[in-house]
Parts: sequence; C-alpha cells; structure tokens
Amino acid sequence: MINAFDARATNAVAPRERALIERRQKLLGPAYRLFYANPVHFVRGEGVWLYDPDGNAYLDVYNNVASVGHCHPHVVAALSRQAATLNTHTRYINDVILDYAEKLLGYFPPALSQVMFTCTGSEANDLAYRVARSHTGGSGFIVTQLAYHGVTAVISEMSPSLGAGVTPGPNIRTIPAPDQFRAGGADVGQAFAAAVRDAAADLRAHGIQPAALLVDTIFSSDGVFAEPAGFLAPAVAAIREAGGLFIADEVQPGFGRTGASMWGFQRHGIEPDLVTMGKPMGNGHPIAAMVARPEILQGFGDRTRYFNTFGGNPVSCAVGQAVLEVIEGEGLVSNARDTGAYLQAGLRQLALRHEAIGDVRGAGLFIGVELVRDRASRAPDGATTAKLVNGLRERRVLISASGPHANVLKIRPPLVFGREHADRFLDALDATLREVA
Amino acid sequence: MINAFDARATNAVAPRERALIERRQKLLGPAYRLFYANPVHFVRGEGVWLYDPDGNAYLDVYNNVASVGHCHPHVVAALSRQAATLNTHTRYINDVILDYAEKLLGYFPPALSQVMFTCTGSEANDLAYRVARSHTGGSGFIVTQLAYHGVTAVISEMSPSLGAGVTPGPNIRTIPAPDQFRAGGADVGQAFAAAVRDAAADLRAHGIQPAALLVDTIFSSDGVFAEPAGFLAPAVAAIREAGGLFIADEVQPGFGRTGASMWGFQRHGIEPDLVTMGKPMGNGHPIAAMVARPEILQGFGDRTRYFNTFGGNPVSCAVGQAVLEVIEGEGLVSNARDTGAYLQAGLRQLALRHEAIGDVRGAGLFIGVELVRDRASRAPDGATTAKLVNGLRERRVLISASGPHANVLKIRPPLVFGREHADRFLDALDATLREVA
Repeated sequence: MINAFDARATNAVAPRERALIERRQKLLGPAYRLFYANPVHFVRGEGVWLYDPDGNAYLDVYNNVASVGHCHPHVVAALSRQAATLNTHTRYINDVILDYAEKLLGYFPPALSQVMFTCTGSEANDLAYRVARSHTGGSGFIVTQLAYHGVTAVISEMSPSLGAGVTPGPNIRTIPAPDQFRAGGADVGQAFAAAVRDAAADLRAHGIQPAALLVDTIFSSDGVFAEPAGFLAPAVAAIREAGGLFIADEVQPGFGRTGASMWGFQRHGIEPDLVTMGKPMGNGHPIAAMVARPEILQGFGDRTRYFNTFGGNPVSCAVGQAVLEVIEGEGLVSNARDTGAYLQAGLRQLALRHEAIGDVRGAGLFIGVELVRDRASRAPDGATTAKLVNGLRERRVLISASGPHANVLKIRPPLVFGREHADRFLDALDATLREVA
Repeated sequence: MINAFDARATNAVAPRERALIERRQKLLGPAYRLFYANPVHFVRGEGVWLYDPDGNAYLDVYNNVASVGHCHPHVVAALSRQAATLNTHTRYINDVILDYAEKLLGYFPPALSQVMFTCTGSEANDLAYRVARSHTGGSGFIVTQLAYHGVTAVISEMSPSLGAGVTPGPNIRTIPAPDQFRAGGADVGQAFAAAVRDAAADLRAHGIQPAALLVDTIFSSDGVFAEPAGFLAPAVAAIREAGGLFIADEVQPGFGRTGASMWGFQRHGIEPDLVTMGKPMGNGHPIAAMVARPEILQGFGDRTRYFNTFGGNPVSCAVGQAVLEVIEGEGLVSNARDTGAYLQAGLRQLALRHEAIGDVRGAGLFIGVELVRDRASRAPDGATTAKLVNGLRERRVLISASGPHANVLKIRPPLVFGREHADRFLDALDATLREVA
C-alpha cells in the first residue's frame, strides 16, 4: 500500500505510539495498515485541523470524509438531536428519510429519481453490482487498472488497487485510466472508449455479457484524472452500445469536491444509469447510497427486496441532511472551485522552481501533483513522493499519494479549506521539496 | 416477505400515512418493504416504546437493534461527545478503538483474540466469507435452508430467506435447520451434523472444497431454534473434519440476548473459528465486527489489507463501548434470562387456553411461538400468525413472524423489557388470540 507504515522499521516512532501500535497489532490483527513511516496519533479534530495528544495541530490536506470540516457543530447537533429522538429502520414509516431523499435527489438530473440507502460506499457499489446484473442479465464488469471501489467480496475483485492479493474474477476486465499526462497527445476520451469497446468484445468472446462500466469519475486511486472535462462521454456511449450500464462511483468526487457541481459526472456532461456515493455524505457518519433510474431498479425490486438494517435510518438521514445544509449554507462547492483554483495556481508557481513537479491537475479540491525524475522523460519518481509525504507529516501537514507508480500527491482537504490554509500547505510543500527533491 | 405491507391493499391505511407511502415508493423505489397490512409511523422512541405522530405508545416486542432501549441516554451521550471530539479512521493511531477492542474481546474465549470492524452485519459476514476462503483455499459454504446472513452480493446468495429472486450460487449448499419441534423425536444435533457431512461430501463431489459452515446460532429466520443447548457441537466437529471453518453469526443472538451469556454459541459449548456480530452492537449506530482466531487471519492479512472507511472509527467505538457499559451496568444479560423465562412461562400458560399455540421455545429474550392448525398434526398455521401479528399491531404491540411456513411469532424485544412489559404483551396476545384463532 502506498504510504503504509512498515512495522519492521519502527525507529522513527516515539515510545508512546510504539506501545499503541503493538497493542493495535495484537488486538486488530495483520490486515490493518497505518499511514506514514511515523504514524500519527490524533485525539481531537476541528475544521481543517487534527490534534495529537500533545496539542499539536496538523493541517488536514487529505481527508475527504470529514468534508464539511472535522466535528462540524451543525452536523454534530443534528446527529445528537435525532439519536435522542428516534433511530429505527426503513420498515416503519418515517419522514426523515423521505425529506432527505427528496433533498438529495434534487441535486440529480430528473431521470435519476430514486435512491437506496446503505451504510458504506462498498455496500453501495455492491448493490449497484447486483442491480446491474439483474437489469442487464450480464455479469461482465469493466473497471480501470488501478481502480478502488470497495471491500466486499465482489467489489474487492473489482478494486485492483488492493494489490495482487485480491485477483479480479473471470467476469472482470481492467482498462487503462484516461491519463492525459502520459497519453502522448492522444485523445484520452476516444482512447478510453476504445478500451471499453475492446474489453466488452473480449468479455463477449468469453461468453460473458457486459453488465456495466464502473468508474470513479475523478480516478482517485489511478492518479487523479479530471481533464479535459467531457472525456467520459464516448466511454458511456461505448458501454451502452455493448448492452451495459454506466455506473458513476461518486464516493470520492461527490458532494461538491470538484468545485464544478455536486457530482463528478456532471463535469463530463453525462447521465449515469446508477450513481454510488459515500464517504463525505455523513461527514464521517456511516451513510452511503445508490441513486438510480427507476426503470433500472424496477426488475430488481420486483424480483427481490432490499433491507439494510442501519441504511437510511433516521439518524443517518438527519446527518446527511445537515451535511447538505452546510454545503449550501457555507457555499462549499464554490469554495472548492475558488480555493482549488488558487491552490492549483500556487502549485504551478512551485513547479517553476521545482523540476520534480511534472504535472499539476485535478478539479476543485481534488488535486494530483505528479512527481517525475526529469520532465523530458516524465519518469515517475515514487521515492521522492514518499519522502515528500513523510516530510510533510513531520511538518504537521497531512497528504498521501496514489497512481500506479505511487508518484502522485493526493491533495483533497476538507471543503472548508481556505486560501490561508492553501498558503500554509504551499509553504510546507515548498520547504519539503527543497529538502527532499 | 413475511409480514410485508401489500401496496395493492391500502384500505387499512389512514390518508396521512397513505400519502407518505406513495412518496416513499416514488423516492425509494420498488425494493423497499414496509411491515404490516397497516404500516406504522414513528416519530419518537424511548426504552421499550415507540411513539406515532399522535403520541400513541407502541410496545416494542420486536426490535433487537435498539437492544439497550430506544435512544438510551448513556449511548446518545457517548455518541454526541465523541462526534464533537474526533471522528477519523483506522489509518491514524487512536486509543478509542483499542480500548473498545480490548473490552469486546474480553467477552470471548482467549483463542478468539482479534477483531476487525465493519459497519454492518452484512459486511462482517462478507469479510468472514473472504477470510474463510483465504484460509481454507476452499470456496464451498453450507447454510441453513431459510438462513439470513446479509445483503452483499455473495452473502445474499447465502441467505435463502430472501426468496426465490436471489438464488444460491453453485458453491452453496443448504441444509435443514435443527428443528426439534418437527424432528419426530430424533436427535437434532446428530441430524444437523449428518446434514453438514452430506453437504460437504456433495461439495467435494462437485470439485468444491468446503470453506465453512455459517449459522445464526439462534436460527432466527429459520424459526428460532435454541434447544437442546449443545446441539451445535456435532456439526462444528463435522465441518472441521471436512476441512472447513465454523462461523458463528451472532448478529441476532449476540450481546446477551439469549440470557445465558454474551454469545449464542456459548450455550452450545463450542468455540467458533470466526464470529460475526452487528445489529445491537451500537444500539442502532452502524457498527459491526468479525472476531477471529489469529492463526486464521494471518494469511489473509499477509496477502491483502482491509480498510473500511467508517469501520472502527472513534465514534462507532465510543458507541459500542457505551452499549457494553449499559449491558453490564443494568444487568441486561440476567434480565434477558429472567424476563425471558417469565415470558416463556406466561406463553405456556396461554398455550393451556389456546390450541393454536403449538410450541413455545427460545432462549432469553429471543422467543419463538409456533402456531398450528391442530396440535396432533402440527400443521403450520401461517394465516392465523399473520392475523395475530397484524392484530397485535392494532393493539399497539410490535412483533413479527419467521420460519418456512411464516407461522412462528418472532419475539425479541429490547433487553430492558421487564415483567410489566411481558404482562402487557401477554394480555394483548391473549386478547388477539381470542379474536383471530
């Protein structure tokens, strides 16, 4: 895993944290991973800040879950109020879920008019998988080469970024992400669509009917690909020609992060058949959802039922509603656009002084910075990227990295990130680059 | 689905609720189901009571999620406090998760010493599925004929109670549940073990190596089977002989409900390889987990990592901790035993007057009452059961039904259920039986 703590090299770790890490390994076992060579220990969060037990503040330039800011008081108040009032499930009538469903669907094109609630993005993608199979009769899925869509059994097999320990099933095809930086001037939208057509043909050649193309519309784990806006349209046409659905995974780009609109797919001028969402939806509270065209849900709903014990419960829906109120009330979509543009401009300024910066890209407050050994060859520099991520952590600034070569800085702070925070991050990045690059 | 609202028959429904149901169908689509011929509408909960918008109190004899009582103030306070303090994830060091993991594991035999956190019981079973496959190298799973284990793609295929719309995959075998009432005097434990052996042999005959036997240790959806305690032991031996693991699904019986101990498997004197839990774990907050023997997790953790964005976050763990504190502080395990015994005795008294009651069974506050057309033939009476469930709802008492013939009353109130609530329920059941049976 990129930016994972290596338990065999604990020399950077203070005794108090070393003891907690040992306790953690004993209690939680071998499948958990910590971030950083020197993992961070937090006890409090507020806005764009996380605090360690000694009261040191860390600037959060990474966490897209606490999207409206850590421990936002409006969200905490809604959570506390509803938890003290009623918390049941969807087999009784309750209007909290209906008010929230109505408000949430109001952010979608009219054709996407029904929503089903789950607790995690994994569950939302798993449900989309079931619905896509049920609707198309097919079982073939196409994902990108370094996709991440979740951890259920079937969705982990569609998440090659989990590494070689989880192998794609025989019904999965992976295609290269639309990487304009390394496309050599080719049209990434056409190339991506051609890859979808080839993958669909290959599925059919193996007797597998394509069910869907599933993509994260900001390609977070593949390396952050946002431009040129519109590049997804030919691929959507291609999967539909092949009889499959287009599923937009909005777990990462959704809820205003791209600064252009609420959903990443909207930047591409397309209308998905199914949309999944999660992470920032409850600002850390476990709520996720799948939005659908009714004609695609109908057969599934006729053939089976869906009940998720906690999914869509009144507390989760009150929290989701409060998050939307903050996004609107604090103008966070336009802040993502404005601060994102300011941050991208600052990063381009840094690139004038630092040869290691090969590319600055992204949309709104989801930005990728690709580190290279030299600009002519564009040879990826994963080693410097790792030093940068760890160097920033020592300066109390949190980011991580992604991409097939682990050389793309993943910059996606809470959406309440302002210009003063961007300046602070840019200063720290500048200093760390001078140190390590 | 048993006790599902039929949208084609809305004549029992008041106009206000009818409007909400229409709105719900439009917004949430066709896969959701409501309970009852005349669905209930709740706006507030407290202890064993749920309240409709007109202030009418309903006695909750059904909901095992709000297990320490609806909106328990100690749990709500812990939730509110931690949500206002810190809510991050398991890639940073935090001691809330470690304190909770330690406390939770303290309720298990020493060999079951590691825990992984998810958000739902479905995710916990899905993870157990992945771990069992990884550890055994097999892919065959054995479940009961009317099992329910969750809604992910692979787990729904292991949940035949979802109906014919979800078919078991080729790697699944279903076996009859250990139904002592209909066993004709046979030893249900030996019969269940023989069925496991046959299913394992059949899997092998089809070239499929058995990975696990997965059972709900109270057999909730199969019809509630608890006696004789110990009957699971031969089946556990049988699956191990076949090279598979035994996975105890404690989502329903766990956290003290059976009154004997914290976990249903303990009544049977067995030690599972993996244990999954969910529903009551956070009293409605989305938290679930899988507890494991470390030697079974090791290979999985070496080969891959597991990260669940919200799973094991500090808020969920603070809530889980508060739930355990209430279970201990209010003596809810012994209350489940005592009130459960009182309730079973009362039900047996009712059986003296009502021929329709064919069997009263269960453990602690998980009780099944089987309705029959006559006691000699034991012919199941699903029609009377449906009338009873709906009749009780009109008397503002909430229960539901289960079993292959939909004729087993499913009685599993919050664990704060006292004798006065049991009396009230017994009176209502008596009156409704007189009306409909």
